[in-house]
Amino acid sequence: MLTRIDHVGIACRNLEAKAAFYESAFGLTVASMEVNESQGVREAMLHVADGLAGASYVQLLEPLGPDTPVGRFLERRGEGLHHVGYGVANITAALAAIGATGVRLIDERPRHGSMGASIAFLHPADIGGVLTELVQAPDH
Amino acid sequence: MLTRIDHVGIACRNLEAKAAFYESAFGLTVASMEVNESQGVREAMLHVADGLAGASYVQLLEPLGPDTPVGRFLERRGEGLHHVGYGVANITAALAAIGATGVRLIDERPRHGSMGASIAFLHPADIGGVLTELVQAPDH
Repeated sequence: MLTRIDHVGIACRNLEAKAAFYESAFGLTVASMEVNESQGVREAMLHVADGLAGASYVQLLEPLGPDTPVGRFLERRGEGLHHVGYGVANITAALAAIGATGVRLIDERPRHGSMGASIAFLHPADIGGVLTELVQAPDH
Repeated sequence: MLTRIDHVGIACRNLEAKAAFYESAFGLTVASMEVNESQGVREAMLHVADGLAGASYVQLLEPLGPDTPVGRFLERRGEGLHHVGYGVANITAALAAIGATGVRLIDERPRHGSMGASIAFLHPADIGGVLTELVQAPDH
């Protein structure tokens, strides 16, 4: 069902500084930088590698304010790993199959994610504390 | 320099139960289960996908006891995302290049990781709170 590790999501306080760090220390390149108002973040996608089923990224997340999910995460835990996103071929089918196993869906229906993808989050309390995202890349 | 997201490392309290969960909810398969005494863990590698530069995994980590790095992590933060591992073609060259940028190396020299890989950890305090691992897959 999962086709790849699409990205690791990392919470940070300064998007530009952290993106520059990943570029210089690890040789990554910024593939996109955008604002996602509905998720309350500015985000950068740094390209790690292409794969058989799509590319993989480091996703940096800076909150738009303290009263947002990522803002509260930073307040509670500080900068660091926030979530993991897995690629799927068909997000609607994947949500139905995973939901049927008893995992609660934060998003019952896909919504807009980075770079035109359709995404949905699953409840971390049902996945051993791991905030887990499904990602269906846009059609080309 | 980075060739792929090799794995996400997830701390858990019961390796067999969590591996069974990932198999049933996400359709992953256990590729290996082993004890790493030097890291104080039992670990399972669950295959997510093959890629151009090697496979990607979910790595589940159960501490061998409370007074281990993963045991202390669980005590402090509970189950959840513990680290991210990136593939590199040449881990010795990668350590030298990353160290030269000022990132502190937890492992100055590679050591034994999962499934015969050579691995080394980088200091999370220099990478925005993210415990980061480099992974060179074994030669075949």
